[in-house]
Amino acid sequence: MAKELKELTSRSENYSQWYQDLVIKADLAENSAVRGCMVIKPYGYAIWEKMQRFLDDMFKETGHSNAYFPLFIPKSYLSREAEHVEGFAKECAVVTHYRLKTNPDGDGVVVDPQAKLDEELIVRPTSETIIWSTYKNWITSYRDLPILCNQWANVVRWEMRTRLFLRTAEFLWQEGHTAHATKEEAEEEAKKMLEVYADFAENYMAMPVVRGVKSETERFAGALDTYTIEGLMQDGKALQCGTSHFLGQNFAKAFNVTFTDKDGEQKYVWATSWGVSTRLMGALIMSHSDDNGLVLPPKLAPFQVVIVPIYKSEEQRAAVSAKAEEIMASLKKLGITVKFDNNDTKKPGWKFSEYELKGVPVRLALGARDLENGTIEIARRDTLTKEVRPMEGLAEYIDTLLKDIQANIYQKALKYREAHTITVDSYEEFKEKIEEGGFILAHWDGTAETEARIKEETKATIRCIPLEGDKTPGVDMLTGKPSKCRALFARAY
Amino acid sequence: MAKELKELTSRSENYSQWYQDLVIKADLAENSAVRGCMVIKPYGYAIWEKMQRFLDDMFKETGHSNAYFPLFIPKSYLSREAEHVEGFAKECAVVTHYRLKTNPDGDGVVVDPQAKLDEELIVRPTSETIIWSTYKNWITSYRDLPILCNQWANVVRWEMRTRLFLRTAEFLWQEGHTAHATKEEAEEEAKKMLEVYADFAENYMAMPVVRGVKSETERFAGALDTYTIEGLMQDGKALQCGTSHFLGQNFAKAFNVTFTDKDGEQKYVWATSWGVSTRLMGALIMSHSDDNGLVLPPKLAPFQVVIVPIYKSEEQRAAVSAKAEEIMASLKKLGITVKFDNNDTKKPGWKFSEYELKGVPVRLALGARDLENGTIEIARRDTLTKEVRPMEGLAEYIDTLLKDIQANIYQKALKYREAHTITVDSYEEFKEKIEEGGFILAHWDGTAETEARIKEETKATIRCIPLEGDKTPGVDMLTGKPSKCRALFARAY
Repeated sequence: MAKELKELTSRSENYSQWYQDLVIKADLAENSAVRGCMVIKPYGYAIWEKMQRFLDDMFKETGHSNAYFPLFIPKSYLSREAEHVEGFAKECAVVTHYRLKTNPDGDGVVVDPQAKLDEELIVRPTSETIIWSTYKNWITSYRDLPILCNQWANVVRWEMRTRLFLRTAEFLWQEGHTAHATKEEAEEEAKKMLEVYADFAENYMAMPVVRGVKSETERFAGALDTYTIEGLMQDGKALQCGTSHFLGQNFAKAFNVTFTDKDGEQKYVWATSWGVSTRLMGALIMSHSDDNGLVLPPKLAPFQVVIVPIYKSEEQRAAVSAKAEEIMASLKKLGITVKFDNNDTKKPGWKFSEYELKGVPVRLALGARDLENGTIEIARRDTLTKEVRPMEGLAEYIDTLLKDIQANIYQKALKYREAHTITVDSYEEFKEKIEEGGFILAHWDGTAETEARIKEETKATIRCIPLEGDKTPGVDMLTGKPSKCRALFARAY
Repeated sequence: MAKELKELTSRSENYSQWYQDLVIKADLAENSAVRGCMVIKPYGYAIWEKMQRFLDDMFKETGHSNAYFPLFIPKSYLSREAEHVEGFAKECAVVTHYRLKTNPDGDGVVVDPQAKLDEELIVRPTSETIIWSTYKNWITSYRDLPILCNQWANVVRWEMRTRLFLRTAEFLWQEGHTAHATKEEAEEEAKKMLEVYADFAENYMAMPVVRGVKSETERFAGALDTYTIEGLMQDGKALQCGTSHFLGQNFAKAFNVTFTDKDGEQKYVWATSWGVSTRLMGALIMSHSDDNGLVLPPKLAPFQVVIVPIYKSEEQRAAVSAKAEEIMASLKKLGITVKFDNNDTKKPGWKFSEYELKGVPVRLALGARDLENGTIEIARRDTLTKEVRPMEGLAEYIDTLLKDIQANIYQKALKYREAHTITVDSYEEFKEKIEEGGFILAHWDGTAETEARIKEETKATIRCIPLEGDKTPGVDMLTGKPSKCRALFARAY
């Protein structure tokens, strides 16, 4: 076994260390010289690019166009919406100067005090304010609506405690910002995009999610409603994977964005915003991976199949390579991405560990004996099983196998979530069960006070009020007051 | 004619105003509330996305992977390479604080003086320093080389005079950063990527470019050699469209990046970097567009064909729409992108002007009479010509037409450049001809002094020493000193 593999901490030993080890050793990302900012390495970025491509296609299919808005937000803009600035002011990177000059007292350069900005600029933590200041000029009539824009961008939130992918000072994301003539249309948009996210999570990331609405406490700063998809990680902690906000007319009012409606009246525009980020990389890793390394769903793997040649002579090498090229061609014809690792400086055993660590869904090993027998060895990453089978019909077999793996990974994650979602009626039981991790469905009286007390006493938060499932009213497990339906609780990232 | 079209200033009247008008009226981009930062609007961004997609494919075909490095660069890193910091210090956005707080003296928020950074962070103007500080940890042996990374990112250079796409404080670009074991390999990489850029410019943007190497004065800050592709705009001014730098061991030395070579010796790593930016949008616009609006090469048009229905009754409308759907399906089958503009609130004449302004390569007009006759009207944007032809074989006809348009636009731009490239031997003639615009090939003695004097007296700069063409030595037109070959001069953006 390769050195790298041995060094991966096991999940049961220290889940958090396992995650950190895995992100580093599978070459996904690393910390940079800049506090809290990560470097996303080529292998990690290739997964993110796949996510981007699929999501982008889904956004375009639902009528959205990409655009790009400035990185900087004038400080006064951020202040226009009271809750919004309250939510973001404490973690802002602030640009105050626009020039450096030679250090008059020594080496290097210093900030030029002559080059102070009249108004400080905030590196965008999210773009509602700069975008709504722009939309003001785009909208005069109902004919200009809806506006359905998305941008792929970097944002900065000066988090004090950071973790690769899960919480970083700078992260990559997409943020959709839409403008509508009616409340109904905006609400429908917010829900539609939540469904796009859920579809992506389940059908591409192979990660089951609960669709729900946030409690007031957990809402986006400036939203009237925040919809969320919540995943359950293998350590029993929840992870918020994507949010879609119904913003009402808050930003339209803050930036005075009105339109002339069909009835001739001036009205404020209705808004939504929605985003997912590189945090999804963390969700992907923690949903499926094991003590041997990454487990990637075939749809998001940078390459789905790797071929490792096994040979003892130059003659064998040439014969195996020729066959491998043939296999590659037949796989590519079916749209399967494949890497042929003919690197001569690494042994097959090293390669096996390496691709296990990197989560390549299917590994083919091809040796001289296989050529004689007309066979090939196929290893599945998700089940860690191997089989030797005839070469005939290989491409079609692998095509089916990849679909099986995609489905199997999802089913495994779904079973885990089902086994770790319980219904609880007493606060005593809640406090006991929350220690075991997982989702708990419990009645809540709808007040921020009760929510805060539960959080303080158990570290559990309300992840959401699920959109689907049992809607029977009951009584709050803590206060005994009436509850409209159960909320979903968990400890969370 | 539509109001928008009439308002476009003509090129002969005021070229600069024509450009500004066109960028705004064709919905490509606009200035934002933040000084020097632009908003790229959906139609403009759709063109940029096409550019990105083609370039990205070309980078991957040449063995590069994407990655992502931090937005921020510690001030001390920027200072490590002396020429580099000299080149960028005067135009840096500097982050000094990481928190805002409620204004104790009034409304809004103020910078929290308690949240001052120990070391200021520079918003990246380019990423050599942060990337080479990272590569240090990735490289120990020759086996780790080459590293072939690219990133798509935003960068900030605090330019004082900005123009949409051509010079903005924030812009989007890609920057490739490669690390090599030998000087030869790095030089080859720098030249290879220049050729990728030239290929892209000529075969996708339909813009002929001169490939060359920069004079020492015009080199990238920190490079040993800067290769460039130079385009000639319709006003006779040159535009630098992309650069590829051979960085030698400058950044490896600044960040102490060494490797153990095959011979067991420790050596510094060799580097290249290369980039193109949203400035290409400006080049695209100025290469082909006319007084009626944009002219887009079919390969980069957000949609290549638009169908405008013409009808007088609901019955006609239904019949025309049915036929249009049929045409769309047949075009899509050939991979042609098409928009059917069935917006009922705009008249056909308004639409004709609109799509002319937006540079859609082919416009189809389809009316009730066409249905009777089995005909359709086809308008070409590049030549502004129209024809009515039979419906049979329409899709194939348009497929060929789009290729013709792509080729024609290139040929037109090439002819313009050829007609505006002259060879000059006396400085008197140079001073006279430079007023007419265009490229001038003239002998230069290779000194920075002569280059500076020519620039001061004529506003012309050396765009490059062309890689191809006449290499006959001669004498400098100004000083009479020996010249190895002619340099390419022009006034430039």
